[in-house]
Amino acid sequence: MNTLDLVKQVAQKNDKKILMVVIDGLGGMPNPETGKTELDTAKTPNLDALAKKSAAGLTVPVEYGITPGSGPAHLSLFGYDPEKYQIGRGVLEAIGIGIHMKNIDLALRGNFATMDYSKNMVTDRRAGRIPTEKNQEICELLQEKIPKIEDCEVIIKSGKEHRFVVVFRGEGLSENITDNDPQKENNPAKKIIASKPDGKKTAEIVNKFIERVSELLKDKPPANYCLLRGFSKYPDIPQMGDVYQLKPAAIATYPMYRGLAQLVGMTIIQTPGETIEDEITVLKKEWNNYDFFYVHIKKTDAYGEDGNFDAKVKKIEEIDKLIPEFVNMKADSLIICGDHSTPAMMSGHSWHPVPFMLYSKYSFGNETIQGFSERECLKGALGIFRATNVMSLAMAHAMKLGKFGA
Amino acid sequence: MNTLDLVKQVAQKNDKKILMVVIDGLGGMPNPETGKTELDTAKTPNLDALAKKSAAGLTVPVEYGITPGSGPAHLSLFGYDPEKYQIGRGVLEAIGIGIHMKNIDLALRGNFATMDYSKNMVTDRRAGRIPTEKNQEICELLQEKIPKIEDCEVIIKSGKEHRFVVVFRGEGLSENITDNDPQKENNPAKKIIASKPDGKKTAEIVNKFIERVSELLKDKPPANYCLLRGFSKYPDIPQMGDVYQLKPAAIATYPMYRGLAQLVGMTIIQTPGETIEDEITVLKKEWNNYDFFYVHIKKTDAYGEDGNFDAKVKKIEEIDKLIPEFVNMKADSLIICGDHSTPAMMSGHSWHPVPFMLYSKYSFGNETIQGFSERECLKGALGIFRATNVMSLAMAHAMKLGKFGA
Repeated sequence: MNTLDLVKQVAQKNDKKILMVVIDGLGGMPNPETGKTELDTAKTPNLDALAKKSAAGLTVPVEYGITPGSGPAHLSLFGYDPEKYQIGRGVLEAIGIGIHMKNIDLALRGNFATMDYSKNMVTDRRAGRIPTEKNQEICELLQEKIPKIEDCEVIIKSGKEHRFVVVFRGEGLSENITDNDPQKENNPAKKIIASKPDGKKTAEIVNKFIERVSELLKDKPPANYCLLRGFSKYPDIPQMGDVYQLKPAAIATYPMYRGLAQLVGMTIIQTPGETIEDEITVLKKEWNNYDFFYVHIKKTDAYGEDGNFDAKVKKIEEIDKLIPEFVNMKADSLIICGDHSTPAMMSGHSWHPVPFMLYSKYSFGNETIQGFSERECLKGALGIFRATNVMSLAMAHAMKLGKFGA
Repeated sequence: MNTLDLVKQVAQKNDKKILMVVIDGLGGMPNPETGKTELDTAKTPNLDALAKKSAAGLTVPVEYGITPGSGPAHLSLFGYDPEKYQIGRGVLEAIGIGIHMKNIDLALRGNFATMDYSKNMVTDRRAGRIPTEKNQEICELLQEKIPKIEDCEVIIKSGKEHRFVVVFRGEGLSENITDNDPQKENNPAKKIIASKPDGKKTAEIVNKFIERVSELLKDKPPANYCLLRGFSKYPDIPQMGDVYQLKPAAIATYPMYRGLAQLVGMTIIQTPGETIEDEITVLKKEWNNYDFFYVHIKKTDAYGEDGNFDAKVKKIEEIDKLIPEFVNMKADSLIICGDHSTPAMMSGHSWHPVPFMLYSKYSFGNETIQGFSERECLKGALGIFRATNVMSLAMAHAMKLGKFGA
């Protein structure tokens, strides 16, 4: 069953509104000392009250047992099969770093490296992990000196330590080229070549870029060379406006999530600051201008990644206090969900299904559950289901899907 | 996973029997005044007792969030992927109106329309919505005067108001032709042409049919012309006898459901009247002649569509009284289910998962639930599952599926 195609067949415009609040890394695991998860431990009267009248369940972000990155986890929530629509690493890095990509762009990831030019050997693939400040300095220099290669605009952004991102902007670029990383130290860098015929022009441009970088950095070890990989074109992905007949908008403070939302055709709304309150402020202000809002809340995931159980609990309690603000928008479909689980006990993303609830006039809530947690959501009206069905449910509950077949 | 292919690989004949009772539009929504659904509200001691010892669950007719028409909802119950096997509108109308179609047939939907022949303009696409009796009169005339076009038999049946159905029966017909509907009034009718090369002959025949209709009706406005659309061939769909090694029969009083059953290869058993008791009478009579019975009960859906909560409750109570009759047949797999939900609170079909139970010697019932309702079925042994798995479960519980793989 191709859900996206199916939904597209029956999607219809109306004036009803969908509000999807994504609490990043929402799901957790029981703390061995208490047997309670982060959601169990947090005092969440507002989430619990909403859960009682919502259709609740647990979402499987990609597949049972698969731990997703932010990209696939979000694409699923937006209704896109994350196996079919895989976003290349270069593009993910570029949008994560805040580059506003265009559909002709080719993105790639770079490392600064140390080259022994006398022997033509890469002696350190990470240039001794130079400080980030040094990296920024080098990237500024390169950006100034290499604004273009042939007809391609070049955009260079520094990352952490030895990492950076390059975007080539021009017609006819291809991701079908090899990389120049020798994989092992004390080996010569490889020549970049086309892996398919359409990669010929791109290989030439990327090799010229490496030559220019070498010229500029040659005498400045340790970061005197670059290794490039993860070549990826901006993906050809159906746009939410076309698929769902929606006018969608994204409210997110982190570049990665704004980038993902932009990929699928959402308008990015700027927030005055970085807090959830800032997000709510613009949500209210823009409420009449769109019929779908994606609001992203980041910090739960960050504390989960840090393995900080208590800080994640506290953040959930802070979010709970703001839940009435979302409820009061009176969306026709209100969804509170996560993109994936980030149990503090695991200090990282996990594959565990993620608590989900949908409140609408037409949601079958009916006190099937008593609160919002991993365990309670198991008993909810939606059971365990694929995150790729979140949008079809959101649309259905806002009466935005016609009947399939007669 | 292609369930139908998988089941076909392991299906085996035996003398055990499957009885599938489909209560149309069974699922409901809570009445806001009481918090209880139609099934919650109805007194159903027999359904409840059966549910306690059945494997219960909730079926998703097509996909989470997708509201199905009767066609896709029934095809799913019979094990056919409703996205893969989409039945054209013309065919659905034809079988719904009671035309016994053959596999060479092309069906289409017609409107009587008003044509200003002096200007060659369609002035009313619905001929002023003529009374149904007038429509019947015209269809009788056309049927008498146009029994054939070239080598194609023509079958004409009146519908309501301005609507009718035509079936062309002949070799080499194709659905790949355009329609003649100008979509807007005061425009000329379009010429029907082939949209793919194999539609050439069909376009000629259909244009000749329109000419003949024009000749016969020209001087009898308002219904003096016809607009044709929804061309669809009788679908090429695997037959239940081949797939399941069954000898299947259908007991249904409405033409649409008899037609759908016939599409998948069931023998249609005539009922002496329109009541459930009539259906039970023939079920008993024919019990030894088939090993699969589909029994369709319509009225629950009709009251749901009318938004008549109390009448739907009452109908469920009437059905409950007859449940022992079905139980007493002692089928090896007895299924009580719905094709989709039709909550009275929504006055129409909906996407909500549908209560389901399967009683057999091998069903895992074991009092996991206390009654037959949306909420109780959530806790059943089968959970929420795709309706396309109903047949594999029915077959398994009747020991009609061998082991898959060694």
